[in-house]
Order: sequence, then structure tokens, then C-alpha cells
Amino acid sequence: MRLALVGCGGVGRAFIKLLEDKQNALKARGLFLRLTHTIDVENSADYDKMLARHKADMLVLATPTDKESGEPGYSYIKAAFKHGMHVVTADKGPILLAYHELKKMAENNGVKLGIGCTTGGALPAINAGEMALAGADILSIEGILNGASNFILEEMREQHKSFNEALAEAQRLGIAETDPSLDVEGWDTAIKLLILTNVLLNENKRLADVEVRGITGLNRYDLNQATHAGLRYKLVGRSAYVNNRLLMKVEPLVFGPQHPYYHVEGKNKVVRYTTDTLGELTISGGASGVFAAAASLLRDIINIALCFSDKP
Amino acid sequence: MRLALVGCGGVGRAFIKLLEDKQNALKARGLFLRLTHTIDVENSADYDKMLARHKADMLVLATPTDKESGEPGYSYIKAAFKHGMHVVTADKGPILLAYHELKKMAENNGVKLGIGCTTGGALPAINAGEMALAGADILSIEGILNGASNFILEEMREQHKSFNEALAEAQRLGIAETDPSLDVEGWDTAIKLLILTNVLLNENKRLADVEVRGITGLNRYDLNQATHAGLRYKLVGRSAYVNNRLLMKVEPLVFGPQHPYYHVEGKNKVVRYTTDTLGELTISGGASGVFAAAASLLRDIINIALCFSDKP
Repeated sequence: MRLALVGCGGVGRAFIKLLEDKQNALKARGLFLRLTHTIDVENSADYDKMLARHKADMLVLATPTDKESGEPGYSYIKAAFKHGMHVVTADKGPILLAYHELKKMAENNGVKLGIGCTTGGALPAINAGEMALAGADILSIEGILNGASNFILEEMREQHKSFNEALAEAQRLGIAETDPSLDVEGWDTAIKLLILTNVLLNENKRLADVEVRGITGLNRYDLNQATHAGLRYKLVGRSAYVNNRLLMKVEPLVFGPQHPYYHVEGKNKVVRYTTDTLGELTISGGASGVFAAAASLLRDIINIALCFSDKP
Repeated sequence: MRLALVGCGGVGRAFIKLLEDKQNALKARGLFLRLTHTIDVENSADYDKMLARHKADMLVLATPTDKESGEPGYSYIKAAFKHGMHVVTADKGPILLAYHELKKMAENNGVKLGIGCTTGGALPAINAGEMALAGADILSIEGILNGASNFILEEMREQHKSFNEALAEAQRLGIAETDPSLDVEGWDTAIKLLILTNVLLNENKRLADVEVRGITGLNRYDLNQATHAGLRYKLVGRSAYVNNRLLMKVEPLVFGPQHPYYHVEGKNKVVRYTTDTLGELTISGGASGVFAAAASLLRDIINIALCFSDKP
């Protein structure tokens, strides 16, 4: 299977390295994955040329996320589908804005769309929701979906730091972005929750439908109060039907030691589903960072390749 | 897709009911699953007739597990593959004894083998290990894999019951089998651990390779001692490489409140993987009982059907 990579930032470069490292293990499983095109985000002329002359079988999309327009990822995905290519994407933008349209287009073109990387990197939230819960009705989705916020809350609690001091530490360690507003104001959590909701509950919601409160309103005093009560703050996203109406909310909540979220510390994440026939399912862990994101892309590629199992 | 069900015990009957209940939801997803044959375990003549005259596309195997011979499931699976049928199985026997042979045979016949139901019913241990960790090397497998033992340990601890009293309660509630030896002596855990190990670590081990100690040696005094130390006993199965040698062990271990296993109570289960590129992954929950087992079979069927996506 020939892969074309668009986007050579951190995730794209990590993917190139990972594919090299895993080449022997993949071949041993009968999977022949070759990176035949590497295309810079700016250079869409190269992309058109690739499509026209010598198309690949799958597009690996590592373009930067634009949550307003979904571009440039959105256009790349549509062009790939038109040319009969599968797509796996680390870019959340197009999935956030146009999941159902793109999914339909993939089906009409007989190809697959892999989005496992868009809802928490290595945490297999989408994969588990789609494959491990196939056939069950998912009744609610809940989770700690942003590692940076979780790290900051722990720093404030354990090291008695102010919000700004804890944020600075998270930035120093590369856990929070230079512009941390998406993380700490709850929007990263909201984006992931929204994708999970639209995909797994078959909804068609927008970011404006999510009630979002981040962790910026919490101070040392709040965290000390919680600690004295034996509780810990966690930034939680939740989608659930209440009186047949879907409520989507992101907010900091407190949990005691009997609750599994209490123990999700550092930059770890967790997602929890309730279902009709397969009970409750809690998934936690998943590495963070560009290398884990690359591994998450590779996971989607392998699952698609095994499904189509083309051998050379 | 036409399904043939072999075995009409608890799981088989629950599957028939579930397939009826889910018919509309499945059709809405473009999945047309029809049960065209229901065959009693004793009646292999009916099975041969079904294969010869009017074969189905997939065999749903709900035969009783025989961990010594793997029969009758083993013969049913091989016959199905020869006739180009996919197989999903709730019967652990053939998978325990001959996974690699059957997997190879499925590949050679261009069909799929679904075994998600064999390692904890609704708990997606195999599914997560195969699909959510695709491309990663799994370094260790660990878990609380037997709900009955977990329930008995909690009853002994919380209700100060003796082992026999707690076992009687588990049997009264239908959590433990009438012959509970597989559960409490650790063999059910060992069987699930062995399947996970052979499948996910690509090993070829047998039950004799697992060091097994169940919970029958624990008494009220042991559990009280642990409680006073703030710890809880859990029956844990673990496969890990130590100095390049695979060690497989089932034994009761104690855990404190900081450890996630401490909070896995009642008949809940958990499985935990460590990997090279996707970090650590912990999955807990999953309903128990025949209905959950049926839902687990349906999950495998849907994943296979979506892969082959035959529309009418």
C-alpha cells in the first residue's frame, strides 16, 4: 500500500520515523506500507501533481488544525476521496466541521476514513467506541480528554502553585502549547467531545452547542478546599441524553478516591461509555506527544490495510 | 449476510433474541444480518446438510467449551472455513488449543475468525489489543479477568464471610458456575490470559506453561489482615517478558487505593497493556452474563461485516 503524507511538522516527521522503525514488524505481518510521497502543506501544486500522475492508495493527513474553516485538511481529504484514496487524519478541523459529509463521501467512493488520532492521540477513544462497542447503543460519553489541564490541576494541588505558575511549568515541559487557551479554557476537550458525540451518537452538533467552562477560574484556594475534603478537581467533558435531549458540557468537577477519575493523574486521559448491551466501558492511558500521535495514525492505517488486505 | 448459529444454550438463545432486538438499528446502518440456520450441538448431521445444500456466510459458534479436546467447536470451525464461511466464536476451547492453526486456515480461505467473546465477554480485551493497539508491540498483559473470583473476594472482605459462604452467594446470584473450580482455582483466568498471550504476543503456549494459584487458599484472616493494611486482594493474571523469557502467572495479589485494580469491584473485570509506541492502556468494565456474551458475538459479526461490507 502506497502512502502519501501531507504535512511535515512534528507529527508528520514522527510518522516518517515510526514507519521506518516499524518496517520489519509490518512486513512480518504481511503489511507492505511504503511512503511514496511527502508533501509540504504550503505546496498544493505538488499534491495535485501527485494525484494526477501517480496516485497513492492512502493519504496520511498531518496538516495543522483550523477549527473555523477546517482548511487545508478539508480540501485535501475531498480530493483524496475523489481519486479513490483512503484517508487517515491527525487534523481535527475537517472532522470537527464536516464528519458526516466526509464519511458519506468515503463510502460513496469505496474507501475508508480513519479518525482515531483526532480524539486523544494514543487513547483509543474513537476506535473503542466504534469497534469495541459495535452493535451497542452508546448512552453517554464522558472523559478527561485534555492532558495539559489535568497536569496543571495536579501541579496546583500537589505543589501549591498558582494557576499561572503551573501553566508555565506545563509549557516548560512541552505539555501545554505556547498558546494554551485551547487547553485550559476547555476548547480542546470540547472539540474531542464533539467529535466523539457526532461520530458515536450519530449527531450533527457544532462547538456552539457545547457548554464550556475551563480551569482558568480555579485558584489555589479552590484546590485546597477540595483537598481538605479528600477530593480532586478534574476537567470533564460529558455528552448524555437528558429527557431525550442531548446535553454537552465541559467543566471542572470534583471526585473522591472511590471514583476512577480521581486516579487519572498527570497528563493521562480517560474516556467512559455507558451502553445498552455491553455495559459500561472505561479506557484510560495512552501516551501523549507527536510520537504517540504518529503511532495512532499507524494504527488506523493498519486497521484499514488489514480490512482491504492487499498483498503485493 | 446469512448467519448459521450452532449451539442453543444460554448464549445461543440470548444471541437469537439480541439479533431480533437490534434488527432495525442494524438495517439503519446498512447491515443485513439474517439468521438462516439454527443447529443443535448434538445434531452434526444437520450441520453437514446446511454446509452441503445452502451454506451461510458466517458461523456463530456457541458450543460448550472443552479445554482438553476443543471439540465439538474445533471441527465446526474447520468445516466452516473449508466452505468459505467466516466464524465468530464464544467457545474458548478451539482458540485455547489451536488459535494459530485456525487463524492461518481462515487466512488461506479468505475469511475472518472473530474471537472477542473468548476473553471476558463484553470486556473488549482482544479487540482492544488487536485493533486499538495495532502497530504497537505489546510488552505485557495483565488483568483481573474472572468476575466470579472478584465478587467472592469482595463478599469475604465486606461481609466477613468464609470462602464457602461467599462462593454459595455467588452461585445463588448466578455469578459462579455450579462447578466453580474453573473460576476459583484460577483456570478461567489462566485460559483467558493464555488466549490473549498467544494472540497478542504471537506466542504458542499451553495451559501447562501458566503458573496458576487461585483464591481457594485465602481465608477470612488473610482478608482481614489486608483490610487492616488498607489493601484489597484481587486475582490477577499476568504475562510479561523477564530477561527475554515469557512468564505467565495467575495469583491473588494485594493492591492499595492508589492502584486502579483496588477499585475494580464486584464482577467487573480489567485488562492492562504496556506497549512500546502507544503507552499504557487500561480497559475496565464490560457487562457479564449470557446477554453480554451475545452482544460480544454481535460486535465481532458487525466488525467483520463492515470490513467485507456486502450490501444486499
